[in-house]
Amino acid sequence: MKGHQNMLSIKHFLVVSMALNVGLISRVLFIGDIKRGDVFFCPESEKTLPVDISREENHVEKKKNDATSIEIPISPPQAIMAPQKDDGSVINLDHGDPTMYEKYWKQTGDKTTVVIPGWQLISYFSDIRNICWFLENEFADAIVKLHNKVGNAVTEGRHIVVGTGSTQLYQAVLYALCPDNSGSEPMSVVSAAPFYSSYPLMTDFLKSGLYKWGGDAHEFNADKPYIELVTSPNNPDGSSREAVVNGRRGILVHDLAYLWPQYTPISSPADHDIMLFTVSKSTGHAGTRLGWALIKDEEIARKMTKFIELNTIGVSKDSQIRAAKILSHVSESIDNKPESDQGGDNFFEFAYDVMAKRWTQLRAAVNRTTLFSLPSFPSGTCSFSGHTFQPQPGITWKE
Amino acid sequence: MKGHQNMLSIKHFLVVSMALNVGLISRVLFIGDIKRGDVFFCPESEKTLPVDISREENHVEKKKNDATSIEIPISPPQAIMAPQKDDGSVINLDHGDPTMYEKYWKQTGDKTTVVIPGWQLISYFSDIRNICWFLENEFADAIVKLHNKVGNAVTEGRHIVVGTGSTQLYQAVLYALCPDNSGSEPMSVVSAAPFYSSYPLMTDFLKSGLYKWGGDAHEFNADKPYIELVTSPNNPDGSSREAVVNGRRGILVHDLAYLWPQYTPISSPADHDIMLFTVSKSTGHAGTRLGWALIKDEEIARKMTKFIELNTIGVSKDSQIRAAKILSHVSESIDNKPESDQGGDNFFEFAYDVMAKRWTQLRAAVNRTTLFSLPSFPSGTCSFSGHTFQPQPGITWKE
Repeated sequence: MKGHQNMLSIKHFLVVSMALNVGLISRVLFIGDIKRGDVFFCPESEKTLPVDISREENHVEKKKNDATSIEIPISPPQAIMAPQKDDGSVINLDHGDPTMYEKYWKQTGDKTTVVIPGWQLISYFSDIRNICWFLENEFADAIVKLHNKVGNAVTEGRHIVVGTGSTQLYQAVLYALCPDNSGSEPMSVVSAAPFYSSYPLMTDFLKSGLYKWGGDAHEFNADKPYIELVTSPNNPDGSSREAVVNGRRGILVHDLAYLWPQYTPISSPADHDIMLFTVSKSTGHAGTRLGWALIKDEEIARKMTKFIELNTIGVSKDSQIRAAKILSHVSESIDNKPESDQGGDNFFEFAYDVMAKRWTQLRAAVNRTTLFSLPSFPSGTCSFSGHTFQPQPGITWKE
Repeated sequence: MKGHQNMLSIKHFLVVSMALNVGLISRVLFIGDIKRGDVFFCPESEKTLPVDISREENHVEKKKNDATSIEIPISPPQAIMAPQKDDGSVINLDHGDPTMYEKYWKQTGDKTTVVIPGWQLISYFSDIRNICWFLENEFADAIVKLHNKVGNAVTEGRHIVVGTGSTQLYQAVLYALCPDNSGSEPMSVVSAAPFYSSYPLMTDFLKSGLYKWGGDAHEFNADKPYIELVTSPNNPDGSSREAVVNGRRGILVHDLAYLWPQYTPISSPADHDIMLFTVSKSTGHAGTRLGWALIKDEEIARKMTKFIELNTIGVSKDSQIRAAKILSHVSESIDNKPESDQGGDNFFEFAYDVMAKRWTQLRAAVNRTTLFSLPSFPSGTCSFSGHTFQPQPGITWKE
């Protein structure tokens, strides 16, 4: 990151980060200090954070064998424990906030307002007949309906496990997949670089004896059980992915947080054994802290539920009920015709347009410099929307 | 528990458990099968669970040197992953549900209803100036106000960390207190028996290299760093507690979930370095999964925040906003005069009356048999309510 800082010192700025995750997109600024007002595309948000382009920390693994790449950390908030000075002169690329759909949600008015009387949702339990006994049926129904309408994931024959964000579900999956018989060494968890910056931290922060971070999946070739994380579209580089380890003893976990039609053309429903999704990326409601897993194997669903039981004794019902309303609205809005140039009431049309506009602006900005380049993706026709487009990820990877 | 099962087989039943945690209180039944309708005191709740008195599992540690004690597991839901057959003939004491304040919350009507529009609370962040950057200010204010009115804990000079229930905060505390330098052995975590049944499970389920369950604090005498959990009033036996380990190198964690005036006379504000509370026990809103920690040391608050960041990237904002409204109402209701025999709008008067009534009935029921006895507590005058009473715990311990 030293070179990066040098660029700052000579006041050649290219402010580029945007993200669903980051909630910001930026534009090229060649001369002068960066002012907070220049970081934009979230005008409604009063909580937009300064983006610190000078940070030494780097939460995204370097793309292997590519010394010239510049990584834009886009992970959810990390290393922000200390309140940071905001004098408007720095831009923080370490973390961000998905607020770009706020305008849409304001448009929906009361239709997506949730009302919870003081006496409701008091119980620990949602449905004790369900393996995931803290899963609200309304939320489960909304998930199934939405996947079936969008066609991005198979829900038939799957157990749904709800989590406090997909972060908790990730840890629940690790717990579920690792044998707890003492004596066995921790199972390796790998993912192809560049991978989501939080994976190593989330895997190793408790120094679990059940699992450990094993690094870049490209380099993993041990003949022992392992877990491979397949993030598709990938965070941070936006690419579509498949497993890379050619091992017999691996279990695959598919993180499909960005597999929605505003980011990538949907081809056919994903049909994997373990699939993770999150409300943060699909509708932008990060503050609800809600994710869900679609799990084929009953025993894995059961052990994931056990993890969440021991970790947090379930998941906020308030958030589940709210998310149920929001996801239901999204499903219903799919049938609506676009009413304006931003898709009107149709959520995915609105979101697609927002992302398309940002990527157009981002590519135009980057084209004005030779300092960076953006990845190029193959175009595809989306089976859901009918749009033919190249992926427009919620995150960027600049070289 | 074998003897317990024999009792069932000869159809001598004593159904005794009640709990805030269990949400049930029971009565003596000497002859005949137990029917679900006989388990009562929660008539409003349709979600009341069967209480399985025949369970082999026992989630509460045996009281040491007391072979005749019969433990009533009252922990939050555990081992309930399999949907259980409910033929009305068994009573499950393994878990329960705090629904006995539901009537009160129904009485409050719209005053405790929360309304959240679809565009609000979208951000990951609540207040980045705060160490706990995902803590909603409304919730923090409500906590401080309530503690100051009740006088059960010092809030001045404390950092507030919000968690997905006090369960998550417990794990956050362990993470915060244990040095992460590799090479050091895991720190022992101890608590005086009988202790909360979930402590050993929550401590050891990930086989962390940072900490490990060390068992009964009475038996701990190693000259090395340790963490002692002091639960007061205690779960499961309701006793007031202080640390028991006479060690120089210990750090105390006070779990004060039941330190509210419906359960025990408040004497003076608790003034410990690390104090844990939860909405589940104070107002009965278990489904919100919300707890809070009052932390004196900034670095500990910072590390706890880091844990929650890595574990779930924050805590449901929907639940925080809802809990803020509910706790604020509780604070305001304190100034109201009781309007009925159940305390009217004054929450703690209502809750005190509910608990008093249950304990009167429970003691009357137990007096009808020689099979069990209930603990006796010293009476005290509550500095908050002015009532002189002996503690009426949200949980029972029968011998």
